[in-house]
Amino acid sequence: MTTQYLTEQIQAKKSFLCIGLDVDLNKIPQHLLQLQDPIFEFNKATIDATHDLCVSYKPNTAFYEAYGIKGWQSLQKTIQYINKKYPEIFTIADAKRGDIGNTSSMYAKAFFDDLNFDSVTVAPYMGKDSVEPFLAFENKHTIMLALTSNEGAFDFQTKEANGKELYKHVLETSKAWKNSENLMYVVGATKAEYFAEIRKIVPDSFLLVPGIGAQGGNLQDVCKYGMNDSVGLLINSSRGIIYASNQEDFAQKAREKAKKLQQEMEEILNN
Amino acid sequence: MTTQYLTEQIQAKKSFLCIGLDVDLNKIPQHLLQLQDPIFEFNKATIDATHDLCVSYKPNTAFYEAYGIKGWQSLQKTIQYINKKYPEIFTIADAKRGDIGNTSSMYAKAFFDDLNFDSVTVAPYMGKDSVEPFLAFENKHTIMLALTSNEGAFDFQTKEANGKELYKHVLETSKAWKNSENLMYVVGATKAEYFAEIRKIVPDSFLLVPGIGAQGGNLQDVCKYGMNDSVGLLINSSRGIIYASNQEDFAQKAREKAKKLQQEMEEILNN
Repeated sequence: MTTQYLTEQIQAKKSFLCIGLDVDLNKIPQHLLQLQDPIFEFNKATIDATHDLCVSYKPNTAFYEAYGIKGWQSLQKTIQYINKKYPEIFTIADAKRGDIGNTSSMYAKAFFDDLNFDSVTVAPYMGKDSVEPFLAFENKHTIMLALTSNEGAFDFQTKEANGKELYKHVLETSKAWKNSENLMYVVGATKAEYFAEIRKIVPDSFLLVPGIGAQGGNLQDVCKYGMNDSVGLLINSSRGIIYASNQEDFAQKAREKAKKLQQEMEEILNN
Repeated sequence: MTTQYLTEQIQAKKSFLCIGLDVDLNKIPQHLLQLQDPIFEFNKATIDATHDLCVSYKPNTAFYEAYGIKGWQSLQKTIQYINKKYPEIFTIADAKRGDIGNTSSMYAKAFFDDLNFDSVTVAPYMGKDSVEPFLAFENKHTIMLALTSNEGAFDFQTKEANGKELYKHVLETSKAWKNSENLMYVVGATKAEYFAEIRKIVPDSFLLVPGIGAQGGNLQDVCKYGMNDSVGLLINSSRGIIYASNQEDFAQKAREKAKKLQQEMEEILNN
């Protein structure tokens, strides 16, 4: 998928919502546990109930790996379901991978070729040759961690080197990498004041923004500082939407939560 | 497994060799491709031929994920085979994971509970709460990236903040984390001169050292600067051992390469 198509989808749906499919068997409705693949059934119902309100789904691979091969089957079925039924959706494998060059190529193959995701999240610590193998895939996108939404973000990401925080070095340095036009960045919503600074470095890039909802970020603030001419934001909400109810009405309640966010976004887009 | 047991194994085998099981179907002997699970058969033969010469095996998850569910089955069979037949071996899932706290818990569950590895590699970029969930597992070990062996290591890991390189901040900061006694660190062999500095910060920790062989590192230099009283080193070689031959004699040739390294190690341990 091209970023232009993604922007068109955002305009058509009046939404830049990404829904995180972080499925924990301890949190989903009990009645699903009797089914053969509870994780997939949960995702399928959630997706069917929300696909018109969001432009992206983001399964976090940790929640699937935790259930071993069964979990990977659920992940595969989920991405296949989305790609077949809702091909207009931008899919994100939230995997935070990164390794030396020849190994990163294998990860890229796993997520772009084998699973056919539109994008994958990666970690920057190992530098250029750990990320460039992902960037080599045409019309695929590599979403690199810049400033994350957790407390530990302040351990290293905000360390100042030559008068500039590490995450800014990450943003700046990555712009010189081969096929850097395929880069997007993760920037946590809990730090809206940082967005103005970040936009000075990467004015045109899409930013994937976790931390709205359960993690306490504010949508208005993020948009005020982070939005660019082609929107350039994907706002993720996971727990706040998918666990709105743990009863039989879970998909309907997820839709209501997603609708609320979509309406806030529509209002922002109209202004 | 405790680190004391690992040290005893090193003394008993006169080896601190770790063999990286990074299996690429394009590189293994052709005759294996006709078998039902070529990756597992390759690993099984390699392990049977080398287990007395090394103390650790390290499958890199990328090489398994690249083959989808079939790949995960090969990984599962491999770890089960080692745990059952060679329980004295220290197993490392080279996964380089890291995410916000509740998500890292799921990764820890995947590698420590579901797959039953002794250890897993993690990335430090997201800080304390991305690593501590791994550290909570008793007699399991978390091997955090400090200074890696690739070219991109110089993009961010050696950036100076307050007169000290980032990887040193990573080492120092992590010592204060809960259950930090379960930490080990990845330090690339291509930079032997750094080991003296690193040992000032983490004198007692085990260091996992990739970059010997294919990546050009030198064993003598690494040991000179990096070894401590209980050895404290796991030297990894992957391609240099497992791809010694792509003919029917691959396991025997792998043994010869491993034997050569083990003998170098024995000589170093005896001095």
